[in-house]
Amino acid sequence: MDAKPAVVLLSGGLDSATCLAIARDTGYACHCLSVDYGQRHAAELNAANRVAAALGARSHRTIHLDMGQFGGSALTDTAIAVPTDGVQPGIPVTYVPARNTIMLALALGWAEVLGAQDIFVGVNAVDYSGYPDCRPAFIQAFEQMANLATKAGVEGHTLRVHAPLINLSKAAIIRRGLALGVDYALTVSCYQANAAGHACGVCDACRLRREGFAAARQADPTEYQNGLI
Amino acid sequence: MDAKPAVVLLSGGLDSATCLAIARDTGYACHCLSVDYGQRHAAELNAANRVAAALGARSHRTIHLDMGQFGGSALTDTAIAVPTDGVQPGIPVTYVPARNTIMLALALGWAEVLGAQDIFVGVNAVDYSGYPDCRPAFIQAFEQMANLATKAGVEGHTLRVHAPLINLSKAAIIRRGLALGVDYALTVSCYQANAAGHACGVCDACRLRREGFAAARQADPTEYQNGLI
Repeated sequence: MDAKPAVVLLSGGLDSATCLAIARDTGYACHCLSVDYGQRHAAELNAANRVAAALGARSHRTIHLDMGQFGGSALTDTAIAVPTDGVQPGIPVTYVPARNTIMLALALGWAEVLGAQDIFVGVNAVDYSGYPDCRPAFIQAFEQMANLATKAGVEGHTLRVHAPLINLSKAAIIRRGLALGVDYALTVSCYQANAAGHACGVCDACRLRREGFAAARQADPTEYQNGLI
Repeated sequence: MDAKPAVVLLSGGLDSATCLAIARDTGYACHCLSVDYGQRHAAELNAANRVAAALGARSHRTIHLDMGQFGGSALTDTAIAVPTDGVQPGIPVTYVPARNTIMLALALGWAEVLGAQDIFVGVNAVDYSGYPDCRPAFIQAFEQMANLATKAGVEGHTLRVHAPLINLSKAAIIRRGLALGVDYALTVSCYQANAAGHACGVCDACRLRREGFAAARQADPTEYQNGLI
């Protein structure tokens, strides 16, 4: 029997690469979806292409969506600086309004066309507790909504949204990924990587990633921009 | 005091124009969002521009999103013909997978940036009973999810999704819109309108619209393509 299809949201960062490895290890034929939502840099999307190929994705599509039109986030609005002086409490300015809702909605549309009943997303509630759309209650509510939104609900199938990293620490995510053969040198997490994909080392995403490798007692394969670390 | 802001999804069709008129009549400052999702024609989006201007929208943005990449619908895939021989039971091929979820997710992102706690959508459960994402249970589930997805949920505001047409017949929608001054000659409902915005008269959307004007005992201002009616 053919493997069941799943749609996997793939940003090119550490978490989504691990999520893809888990989906593949669970036996799914993985159709990866990246969203070019007006990020500051293309390095993450290039990383997504490399990761999809390395982890045997059945297919990979990048959909373009100009979320920068709405503004309101340091990740899509160059007028807002990316914070570099440490992770602070509360919702950070790097929060992109409704980003996970929008990306999951796009995944839902593609899943429906593919006949897939499973969507994987690498959200994590531990490190990003300031992002409302990374919480377990959000994922559950999205899944309930998705079952009412689509043919699945009408035809009696059940659509599932899997967030296998949601309760893992960054160190646990890294250990899980390494055990599944993820090459983290292919991934880019930095909010302001340069064109070569080299990381700044000081944004929140870089800090959490570095701390994760240290806590997991694993070598950090990240390439940093000269002089910043 | 300034009017409260609301995001109104505006397709350029009869329903969303009426929905905008209702939102404005309720006292909201309306920020209209159109989604260019790879429809077969631009006539509907041109209509959205006219309707937003005529009904005093505070602002109007069109966001581009290539849903045709996913295929699976007669509205975005030219390889699938638009049915023209009458409304059939079941989910029609003009159903665009997860369309309302995606459009509401985009509206949610913009609402969050604007600080708006209200979203209006002109979905209707009566005529389009075959579309799963037009049902009241879907709208309620989206609203619940939205309150968990965003800063609103964290900060204790409540976000509301208004679907004022959901239980109205097409005739009732038309009567309501006319009472509020909507000029339906500006709107385009047809799934396959020509470049001038003239309607085919035989797709499901045209049939429901014509029947609506007839049932409301109102003159139908729609311009039809020569020879088709």
